[in-house]
Amino acid sequence: MPVGTLASVKGVPQDLLEDLGVQILLGNTYHLYLRPGVETVRRMGGLHGFMSWDRAILTDSGGFQVFSLSELRKVTEEGVTFRSHLDGSSHFFSPESAIAAEIGLGADIIMAFDECTEFPAERERMRASMEMTLRWAERSKTYFEEHKQEVPWGTVHVGPDALVRAGERQLAESAELRSAGPFDSAQGRLPRASAPTRGVASPADGATQSLFGIVQGGMDLALRKESAERTVEIGFPGYAIGGLSVGEPREVTREVVEATVQHLPTDRPRYLMGVGTPEEIAQYASMGVDMMDCVLPTRAARHGLLFTSEGKISIKQARYANDEGPLDPACGCRVCGRYSRAYLRHLYAANEVLAQVLNTIHNLSFYLDTMRRVRHSIRLGEGTSSLSGVSSQPKP
Amino acid sequence: MPVGTLASVKGVPQDLLEDLGVQILLGNTYHLYLRPGVETVRRMGGLHGFMSWDRAILTDSGGFQVFSLSELRKVTEEGVTFRSHLDGSSHFFSPESAIAAEIGLGADIIMAFDECTEFPAERERMRASMEMTLRWAERSKTYFEEHKQEVPWGTVHVGPDALVRAGERQLAESAELRSAGPFDSAQGRLPRASAPTRGVASPADGATQSLFGIVQGGMDLALRKESAERTVEIGFPGYAIGGLSVGEPREVTREVVEATVQHLPTDRPRYLMGVGTPEEIAQYASMGVDMMDCVLPTRAARHGLLFTSEGKISIKQARYANDEGPLDPACGCRVCGRYSRAYLRHLYAANEVLAQVLNTIHNLSFYLDTMRRVRHSIRLGEGTSSLSGVSSQPKP
Repeated sequence: MPVGTLASVKGVPQDLLEDLGVQILLGNTYHLYLRPGVETVRRMGGLHGFMSWDRAILTDSGGFQVFSLSELRKVTEEGVTFRSHLDGSSHFFSPESAIAAEIGLGADIIMAFDECTEFPAERERMRASMEMTLRWAERSKTYFEEHKQEVPWGTVHVGPDALVRAGERQLAESAELRSAGPFDSAQGRLPRASAPTRGVASPADGATQSLFGIVQGGMDLALRKESAERTVEIGFPGYAIGGLSVGEPREVTREVVEATVQHLPTDRPRYLMGVGTPEEIAQYASMGVDMMDCVLPTRAARHGLLFTSEGKISIKQARYANDEGPLDPACGCRVCGRYSRAYLRHLYAANEVLAQVLNTIHNLSFYLDTMRRVRHSIRLGEGTSSLSGVSSQPKP
Repeated sequence: MPVGTLASVKGVPQDLLEDLGVQILLGNTYHLYLRPGVETVRRMGGLHGFMSWDRAILTDSGGFQVFSLSELRKVTEEGVTFRSHLDGSSHFFSPESAIAAEIGLGADIIMAFDECTEFPAERERMRASMEMTLRWAERSKTYFEEHKQEVPWGTVHVGPDALVRAGERQLAESAELRSAGPFDSAQGRLPRASAPTRGVASPADGATQSLFGIVQGGMDLALRKESAERTVEIGFPGYAIGGLSVGEPREVTREVVEATVQHLPTDRPRYLMGVGTPEEIAQYASMGVDMMDCVLPTRAARHGLLFTSEGKISIKQARYANDEGPLDPACGCRVCGRYSRAYLRHLYAANEVLAQVLNTIHNLSFYLDTMRRVRHSIRLGEGTSSLSGVSSQPKP
């Protein structure tokens, strides 16, 4: 899932994301809650209407951003008081208020409110944090069940040329993701949206969002197992592995994922939050992970770091100043098909905005291609570990 | 002509420019000379190959940027010594070296090296400056005639899928602009480029660039007439009116244009440099101006100022925070067809890069639509002054 923190994948228009084959985007509740605010998004029929994106969307609960971005965070049983990283204003997230925000944002998949345990942490601290996340998961689910009909899909989106029932549209397109039935991680591309829609009017068809639970437990494998089992006991249509990529060695991440994923049901989507390099996402998929999100392809692109079939390239290097070849000869994206490394290097060196745009398009294309290969291998019954090593090593 | 200073229209990929119907781009010799340097561009077959743009390109001579951007400028009969605005390094432009740079950049239309007279200026100063521009025009033409075969079109561009003879390709596409014959300002869109090309190899077909002369003379109408007549005497396939938009009142600009354009041949393109608002470009076209360039649509877009059929909009205003309507209901661009004002306002307020991208696409679309209406009116034999007033007044 490409990350579209503020209802935008930085620099890339939605129609180009569609052309890239993006099936689902991630939005960050913490950021959207601060700007433009949940009410603004709700009035536009949720994120789908607001950002004119008819394919699937997932929002996190804000728990991780509160942990990593906000200032003067204070955690109690009730929830988290924090100061905005933007203006220092004071805010409060509880399981109830976070889920209320996520319902207002109207993504297809929303996440329970959890506490992301810091790394490193003592075992006592990991257990206490895990226990609270379990209590918060219960509260998230309770609030969601009582309020899930408030999702702003109960609206007719009025576009310039067409009337489309938003609920039906989204239900059809996101049925697989939303379904509580078997989840086919090798599924094909979601159907292309019909027409861009905009505006809001009348009532709904009863479709609701899917609330996923999140496993915590720090780096302790026994706690992870317990967290997984007890989260499954609460019961969700999908499960995420949270609390990783918080500074621990990659080897530890891998161990924790392996130890956790086996305790999550195979007939529900299993979502590993916040990873990783192209090799890593192929490896995690081979362990049974169905969904991943990461800022790496988009953030690296903005720093001129590009993933290619020949290794990672830092396009700012002078060695590319006269390189007439395409960025990645094996890539079919619109950037590799049209521009030379010399041109991309120039755009980056001259601080041209187009550098961000083109670099991001390529990196997303590379990631999406990697996942297409992973799905293809799964369909063929092959392992996916052979798909690693395609990319992240610096070019020799 | 949209401005693509550093071989990029800031934030907009070339294929989207093609979709917008852009026929010709302007590149700035001063900027390209500093970054990435003329030799780099020449090796890629000129700007066409370097930026993968098969439609027409015009470069200025650097005279205006040296005047407006560089530091410690020192002008002598020989040329201009100046310090780079980037790193303070010292450089020298003469008519000969500027034309050499423009030949290396390989645009379809290149401009003589002129001195842009400052405003305000005494009559003596205006005359002296005009006389030097005339001598520099002679030198520009002489150098060009002796070196025009050095244009880097003498190359085969090797794309991933196709071999295209760059010379033929560009000749076919830019024939009207390059031709010394009658110039039809109502001409349709240039044929769409076949396939993106890249790389460099072997010999040419003898096509050359078109060197245009530039009229100066400050705000003195008699000097402008004299400059026009003497520039025409030197003889160029097209003529530009320079030295305007340097701080003078708009009414003065209009007067000078009117007084100058009548002394330029109607069977050659007449190019007014550095203007203007949508109303102004329609007005200047009605005076007989065939070509214009301006950073206004692209620069204003980056500041959230958007031209619409209902007036100029500052999208940052809070009044648009919940506005579900399209930016301009009368506009058919991909931005107005898909996104709401509320979304565009959010992108701008949150400092998202996509704001720049989408705002620029819309403003360019608005400008190009304005010029399409102008050409249509000319074809119908109607005046174009009725096309003004479409846009630039702030929305009531």
